[in-house]
Amino acid sequence: MFRYLFILLFFHIYSFSQAFDETESKIKSFYNFSLTKGKSYDWLEHLSNQIGSRLSGSIGAERSIEWAKQELEKLKLDKVWIEPVMVPKWVRGSFEYASIESSTGNSMKVSVCALGGSIATPSNGIRAHVVELTSFEELKKLEKKQVQGKIVFFNSPMDPVEINTFLAYRKLVNLRRKGAEEAAKHGAIAVVIRSLNLVNDDFPHTGSMSYGKTKLNQRIPALSISTNGANLLSSMIKLDPSLKFFVKQNCKNYPDVLSYNVIGEIKGYEYPKKIILIATHLDSWDLGDGSHDNGSGVVQSMEVLNNFKSLNVRPRHTIRVVLFMNNENSLRGSMEYLKNTIKKDEDHLFVLESDSGGFSPRGFSFDSSDQIFKKVENWNQFFKPFLTNNFSVASSGADIKLFKSTGSVLSSLKTDSQKYFEYHHSAQDIFTKVNKRELELGSAAMSSLVYLVDTFGL
Amino acid sequence: MFRYLFILLFFHIYSFSQAFDETESKIKSFYNFSLTKGKSYDWLEHLSNQIGSRLSGSIGAERSIEWAKQELEKLKLDKVWIEPVMVPKWVRGSFEYASIESSTGNSMKVSVCALGGSIATPSNGIRAHVVELTSFEELKKLEKKQVQGKIVFFNSPMDPVEINTFLAYRKLVNLRRKGAEEAAKHGAIAVVIRSLNLVNDDFPHTGSMSYGKTKLNQRIPALSISTNGANLLSSMIKLDPSLKFFVKQNCKNYPDVLSYNVIGEIKGYEYPKKIILIATHLDSWDLGDGSHDNGSGVVQSMEVLNNFKSLNVRPRHTIRVVLFMNNENSLRGSMEYLKNTIKKDEDHLFVLESDSGGFSPRGFSFDSSDQIFKKVENWNQFFKPFLTNNFSVASSGADIKLFKSTGSVLSSLKTDSQKYFEYHHSAQDIFTKVNKRELELGSAAMSSLVYLVDTFGL
Repeated sequence: MFRYLFILLFFHIYSFSQAFDETESKIKSFYNFSLTKGKSYDWLEHLSNQIGSRLSGSIGAERSIEWAKQELEKLKLDKVWIEPVMVPKWVRGSFEYASIESSTGNSMKVSVCALGGSIATPSNGIRAHVVELTSFEELKKLEKKQVQGKIVFFNSPMDPVEINTFLAYRKLVNLRRKGAEEAAKHGAIAVVIRSLNLVNDDFPHTGSMSYGKTKLNQRIPALSISTNGANLLSSMIKLDPSLKFFVKQNCKNYPDVLSYNVIGEIKGYEYPKKIILIATHLDSWDLGDGSHDNGSGVVQSMEVLNNFKSLNVRPRHTIRVVLFMNNENSLRGSMEYLKNTIKKDEDHLFVLESDSGGFSPRGFSFDSSDQIFKKVENWNQFFKPFLTNNFSVASSGADIKLFKSTGSVLSSLKTDSQKYFEYHHSAQDIFTKVNKRELELGSAAMSSLVYLVDTFGL
Repeated sequence: MFRYLFILLFFHIYSFSQAFDETESKIKSFYNFSLTKGKSYDWLEHLSNQIGSRLSGSIGAERSIEWAKQELEKLKLDKVWIEPVMVPKWVRGSFEYASIESSTGNSMKVSVCALGGSIATPSNGIRAHVVELTSFEELKKLEKKQVQGKIVFFNSPMDPVEINTFLAYRKLVNLRRKGAEEAAKHGAIAVVIRSLNLVNDDFPHTGSMSYGKTKLNQRIPALSISTNGANLLSSMIKLDPSLKFFVKQNCKNYPDVLSYNVIGEIKGYEYPKKIILIATHLDSWDLGDGSHDNGSGVVQSMEVLNNFKSLNVRPRHTIRVVLFMNNENSLRGSMEYLKNTIKKDEDHLFVLESDSGGFSPRGFSFDSSDQIFKKVENWNQFFKPFLTNNFSVASSGADIKLFKSTGSVLSSLKTDSQKYFEYHHSAQDIFTKVNKRELELGSAAMSSLVYLVDTFGL
């Protein structure tokens, strides 16, 4: 009897350690493939340099849809298709200009850009005194006459001691998103936001803004000023409180246009109706070429499918990549996908995103039950040799957070975030700022996690 | 009785958690200081841009000694001094040139640089057929007549699938160090080594080489060829095996010269004779400005003292920084320091180095007994909020490895190594390749570890 139990135990341990070794070796093969034969860096070169920026409704966005569909088709997946979705169209226009005009008649040009969704200034610009503030709380303490007819300047620097730079960003992003709405309530005639950038430079950072419930005739132009420009304006206000700021921009909102999500999948041989979804946005802001935000995530997601196909790994579940249009200024792509997937009664077991730049990967965050996190946390042993074993519990990015309602387990690739906000939404977000190895390590990590979910379930 | 025990336990837990909170808050203060008021980035700017490269025996090295001493003096430490040491002097000279000469009479220039310590070619250069090899094993299999009178070309690329790029480097570095000695034994007239670089570019990477026991009249010139150059030469040899390679360089070895280690310390109030040593090399190679190797380590080490002084943290043990001269081509500085410290019967409790570039810090390696590692491993909880909690057991860099004999616990700051070998020992190792936040996070992590060793002992 004991002998029998011993043999059983032996085979149990043996098969366990064999499964462990097999998993380890499969994961190593994803790393080896991604680092030596992967397509991610070449894909990113094309997407960034040959196509460029991809704001919803732009020619770049349309070209990127065509390109992504073609590249996914080349992988010989089981199915590749595009999903129509109406998206907003906003165009930056041909000029954006700002200068500080001292009360003695001198003028100093500073770097600004329109915030996405902003209206234009009148064609001869806006010239007004400036109220410098750091928060909506400060704004609320002012009487209307102190703001009326002036330009509100929100000058709140990102907190440099926040180690996770995304947290520093989140603390301030509402100034950009709702600054125009709040300032307009107080009678301001324009709003200027300090760029959400951790270094001092001359590159303004754009991003989405909304007028909320502000009536059409009460909307005011919203701009972002570079960090150097913000520092200069602030110090000039201290020297010369009656200076004026001059701004001029001719951006414009157009009616919605037709665009598409791009989708490709490998059918699962065991659970074809259970989907492991890799969800990443294809659109980008218009100032750089969107290499970190989020060309990197796009090519890393496509590379997961390339890993599975090239290494002949047949998945048990369906592995699907969706490249959403319009993450940056309305989430229309992800909302449309979700609506349709609910209609079709599709079951998304797991949703993984990569949207924190093509930097060195550090681990994954999970948005799941404690029980499931305990299970996936055990897997971090497989990521230790690749220094990507920092598994944490955290909520996910805007696109995939929508999937919370479907009961899916959500996860995000986490990268080293120290440099992200030097590039994010600015002309600095370009191909040469992405490191090939770091990008490839991200693809390999994502392929490995998808493999683990597919093999061991959740 | 129980009540009594309960109260005791309560105070034990209370004082434990109080100590934990105090430590946590002290560490946070090092991070806040380093990220907002630290001097490391400004120091590096000066060292890299105003002084530049610092090869032993060069004017740059002498200027960096003077500068480091002055800057340490400004911190109002208890003692700052310099320690004389004789160092080798090797000078690159005014030209280094190489070209591939096809058997049809065409010539293609490729980027090369002399390896540190190499002799010059004859003034009209060396022109010879090439034997391409990947290892000493391959060389040993050849008969002497197959090598005699030829140029040996070691063309072994760094392994891209090695995640720790330092391991990929270590696998090949002997080709650079001993390539000339081995090739000369077989009658080669020059040796050309593929640059130890993980990307394909036109920047040759230098580094130290030695002739070992090779007699003076049998020594041959040793060069490094850029990775693009190596790929080109290799593919040309396949097309045209009888091509010739032409090389010309006028580097030179001079007699040893006097130089110095720079040392500064804060005396411990409780154990002034027990030293926590932060040991980093001040010298650099001559092609770039040595910002990653190892200007970063220099300013991070100095910043530890600046943290303690500026935040009024009085250490129990003496905290000493030593900036060694001549790590890159003989370790004379560290050997001299060690010799003198043994003479003076000084007790080095702990030796910490930073010599893996100013990249995002990931953790520390330790070279110690298992028992001590278990203790320090517990401290990694303090580094978790800063994502620098990857503590490992590993041997240390060349300079501090010498301290193994003194019974000291050795430790190295570990950084994200993905990009290091794009810059290392090449003209690419320059100030603009170092990120301010990443550099500062390293200083903060080092200050924190030093604080933990000082507070809780080993």
